[in-house]
Amino acid sequence: MTTWPMQTIGIIESCFKEKFAIPRQPGLSPSAEATLTLLPPFNTPDTVRGLEQFSHVWLMFIFHETAVQGWRATVRPPKLGGNQRIGVFATRSTFRPNPIGLSVAKLADIDTENGVRIHLHGADLLDGTPIIDLKPYLGYADAIAGASNGYADAGNSTLPVHFSNEAEVQLRQLQGRHPKLRSLITEVLAQDPRPGYADDPNREYGMALYQLNIKWHCDTTGAFVTTIEPA
Amino acid sequence: MTTWPMQTIGIIESCFKEKFAIPRQPGLSPSAEATLTLLPPFNTPDTVRGLEQFSHVWLMFIFHETAVQGWRATVRPPKLGGNQRIGVFATRSTFRPNPIGLSVAKLADIDTENGVRIHLHGADLLDGTPIIDLKPYLGYADAIAGASNGYADAGNSTLPVHFSNEAEVQLRQLQGRHPKLRSLITEVLAQDPRPGYADDPNREYGMALYQLNIKWHCDTTGAFVTTIEPA
Repeated sequence: MTTWPMQTIGIIESCFKEKFAIPRQPGLSPSAEATLTLLPPFNTPDTVRGLEQFSHVWLMFIFHETAVQGWRATVRPPKLGGNQRIGVFATRSTFRPNPIGLSVAKLADIDTENGVRIHLHGADLLDGTPIIDLKPYLGYADAIAGASNGYADAGNSTLPVHFSNEAEVQLRQLQGRHPKLRSLITEVLAQDPRPGYADDPNREYGMALYQLNIKWHCDTTGAFVTTIEPA
Repeated sequence: MTTWPMQTIGIIESCFKEKFAIPRQPGLSPSAEATLTLLPPFNTPDTVRGLEQFSHVWLMFIFHETAVQGWRATVRPPKLGGNQRIGVFATRSTFRPNPIGLSVAKLADIDTENGVRIHLHGADLLDGTPIIDLKPYLGYADAIAGASNGYADAGNSTLPVHFSNEAEVQLRQLQGRHPKLRSLITEVLAQDPRPGYADDPNREYGMALYQLNIKWHCDTTGAFVTTIEPA
């Protein structure tokens, strides 16, 4: 069988330091910031000339942390509670024959002073993700009004997010370094990142954002952030 | 440098038998029909279970005819008349570091009787194109209202398309086999597939659709189809 070798053109730095709690699609956490650093020989101002005219870009990336696990014919999407099997090509699951992900992100800034660094908003990418392609988003071709979302329309309700007094104090202390941290935590937890089969309502979770460990649990009123501490 | 080997998961059969005159983005020729045949071991009904719930799909494919030509840091988009250089990552050009294309197509039908054949409308893919991934289009994540198109907004005017009496007769003879042929030719020529540097207004062009050779030229009233003959 023919195989096509793909090379890494750049690496993502992201606020998301682990797979758990990353929003399941791009755009759901506009406060999430990421930077794509292009690698040689692609890191010349030439390769991105004119890209600043676009508001959004497509990123094609490698699911590098799960790629070694290979592919599965069917997977259980979290949107369906994790208990219904759907064909892998009917999902955006990481367990694909070719472990390629596709995300659109808002183009915030392109820095070509010293190599090429592209600042992005709303990307759902793990820190360290290898990028294999970058393309402009073309509204006239890519934005399809009224496309049906299938089962993915299910369960789009979001969780209210609350912070403990302790967490509020910590947020204020971190304000200088991470001004969007409150919005980011709120956007991420509102998606309810708990696994579909979660059945212990009191379980405490930790999630890594930047160099921080955010501890939270769910109660009857929504998600509740208890503490925000250095990881 | 790390490379990621990608395998072909399926092959496209398309009405477009050569690169010339293929619409430059998907969706511009809704009458264009294509079929994706999945290859073993991916051609089981399991891998596409639930895909029928979606109206559109993403296809990731290999620019197999131009891949050997390698990449260029800058290219000259036809949208800019072919005389202005833009960074390759600011375009959808085929001359990319990794020769991956991205297209959205309308999902018409999924046939799992004997292997898996997926019928698509509006795909801008060359016959024989290797596919490396298939994903559902998710409107809530992928359809970005008001995204700016940069230089790609330029030159979106379309050409009027006329047919000679001879071509009209041939279209009627081909009606049974290719009922959408008239629409397809009209959609394709309306995009003005002439190269940006075309300067001879009387030049006659041929284009291959299905097993047909369509001959046309441009005059002051638009595109004019002279004959439609077996290739």
